Amino acid sequence: MSRFIDKRLSSLEAYVPGEQPKPGEFIKLNTNEFPYPPAIGVEKAAADAVNNMNLYSDLSCKALSESFENVFGYDRKNVVFTNGSDEALYLSFLTFCGKECGAAYPDITYGFYSVYADLCGIESTVIPLGKDFSVNPVDYYGVNKTIVIANPNAPTGKMLTVDEVESIIINNPANIVIIDEAYADFSAQTCVKLVDKYDNLVIIGTFSKSRGMAGARLGYLIACEELVNDIQKVKFSINPYNVNSITQAVGKAVLDNDEYYTKCVNEICKTRDSFSEDIKGLGFEVVPSKTNFVFAKHKEIDGKEIAFRLRERGILIRRFDKERINEYLRISIGTPEQMKTVYSALSDIIGGY
Amino acid sequence: MSRFIDKRLSSLEAYVPGEQPKPGEFIKLNTNEFPYPPAIGVEKAAADAVNNMNLYSDLSCKALSESFENVFGYDRKNVVFTNGSDEALYLSFLTFCGKECGAAYPDITYGFYSVYADLCGIESTVIPLGKDFSVNPVDYYGVNKTIVIANPNAPTGKMLTVDEVESIIINNPANIVIIDEAYADFSAQTCVKLVDKYDNLVIIGTFSKSRGMAGARLGYLIACEELVNDIQKVKFSINPYNVNSITQAVGKAVLDNDEYYTKCVNEICKTRDSFSEDIKGLGFEVVPSKTNFVFAKHKEIDGKEIAFRLRERGILIRRFDKERINEYLRISIGTPEQMKTVYSALSDIIGGY
Repeated sequence: MSRFIDKRLSSLEAYVPGEQPKPGEFIKLNTNEFPYPPAIGVEKAAADAVNNMNLYSDLSCKALSESFENVFGYDRKNVVFTNGSDEALYLSFLTFCGKECGAAYPDITYGFYSVYADLCGIESTVIPLGKDFSVNPVDYYGVNKTIVIANPNAPTGKMLTVDEVESIIINNPANIVIIDEAYADFSAQTCVKLVDKYDNLVIIGTFSKSRGMAGARLGYLIACEELVNDIQKVKFSINPYNVNSITQAVGKAVLDNDEYYTKCVNEICKTRDSFSEDIKGLGFEVVPSKTNFVFAKHKEIDGKEIAFRLRERGILIRRFDKERINEYLRISIGTPEQMKTVYSALSDIIGGY
Repeated sequence: MSRFIDKRLSSLEAYVPGEQPKPGEFIKLNTNEFPYPPAIGVEKAAADAVNNMNLYSDLSCKALSESFENVFGYDRKNVVFTNGSDEALYLSFLTFCGKECGAAYPDITYGFYSVYADLCGIESTVIPLGKDFSVNPVDYYGVNKTIVIANPNAPTGKMLTVDEVESIIINNPANIVIIDEAYADFSAQTCVKLVDKYDNLVIIGTFSKSRGMAGARLGYLIACEELVNDIQKVKFSINPYNVNSITQAVGKAVLDNDEYYTKCVNEICKTRDSFSEDIKGLGFEVVPSKTNFVFAKHKEIDGKEIAFRLRERGILIRRFDKERINEYLRISIGTPEQMKTVYSALSDIIGGY
């Protein structure tokens, strides 16, 4: 650390992303990526955008917005596009979590919430999940902070119903509720329609998981017009051209092929459910998942040990050195073929004990 | 503004970017874009990246870094890549301009410096340029703030020598000096080598102007290892995957075709110099430019009027409603053909008076 760093940041602990090895080195099931190729037409959209990249990108993301509206039913008045959903989260923390407000979120959730709270210098109320890793809505009633809940939650994969989320919003009328729906496409449920009813709700989403754009970085935020204007103002004070023109073109092409992505998501859910059943047969306890990953621990064998043995066999999964969950493995759902390989490897490892 | 916005941000005035009209609507000379197509091979690099965009981008920007080192002579230890140079500036303000420190910059310069200062809640010392729009180095000696200077400066196009910049660094040993070299490739001069000598210097650059990537968003920051580590820490606390994989691939391909871009930059400088001479003949006073734009005012005719007449003729340039410079036009340098059209239009407009 240099002598020049802002003192306020000197104790900051940055987010630790999952390992990103060289392509092809591993069966990579550690960061919940989409296992299928892009739809036909996406590559051409990118190439066309490259040939016009000497010009600045469209500040209003007009073409992307139109395709977004066709799929999501919300237009530019209610949407902000971002450089991945991490940026949507950061902008939300920055805009709606003043020092006088603070943030509340579960103890076990996406690791970035606490990092943003620290970075913005705000106080956090960390609310423990239940024993079964459930978010208990009542714990959030009248908490008097900006509330941030991943729904479905990560890394657990568990989900609140729309009614439960609505009860949290109703019971916090003076505070913003941020619902991070990064994995919602795998859950057959979204809270987005609540935006029409509540002026204190922010929905955040990503094209990284269900639309195969983790590398191209496209996130979004849906809220009432007034909140969107607040966020736009802050975005225009940081990086107005935050979504580059190639990503805008690729995102549009992806949305224009929504049928293909829906088919892939259905396939991933099917693979997830059968893989969950399969590993239960090997002695794993599996948290019922509404996402594109499973969160599971073996009844007898140490999680760290299994992760190590999988890595030896060329399979990368994620494990968190964190109280309550350090025995668990978070395994992303790949193609059926990849999951067969994982199952064989697990079977082999467990058979060795 | 909603009732939820952080009070600290309620008076924030966002940056106002230059107008981005529909492609083809205007001869667009208002945001200093590169007027030539990308090098051969760039389109293919993007297409290949799209086919792997389901995976997260390389956090370390390894391949891009290697090509960057070939051209700039600095490797990953000394470089941070960003989502456009605006992000490099924002990260620098956030990291090195604590409340106890503040920032100092010229009164006439890139409009984002004051926006970042406001956003970060820090105090600014605004130092007037000389009558001829020169930065006077002595004005910055011992100013005891983080110093931010665009060199060449925008929108004036004037430049400090390396020795003058070095004198500012030497006379502020306890503070960071940020030199924004967005336009340096058009000046045949860079201060980057000073990074080897000083631990309080940050150089910021962009691929938007001289490498034709305004739409693809790629910026960078070069500094000593310790400062780079500070910035990386903050970057990893905001958006670790800030540079998407397509932009990384495109940036690498652009650097691998450095000869082509150098040729284009030389062509732009030649066009700039002849265009400057040509419009002097029409009664313009032209600030000698070291950039890809000229900053000029007519001796008799109102700047606003000329801008309006050019727009009527399908030519977009930039003008700032700001004291001292509201009579000036900032005209980006396009192709020789475009500048011939602009010259004819100006000649026509001025002849009408």
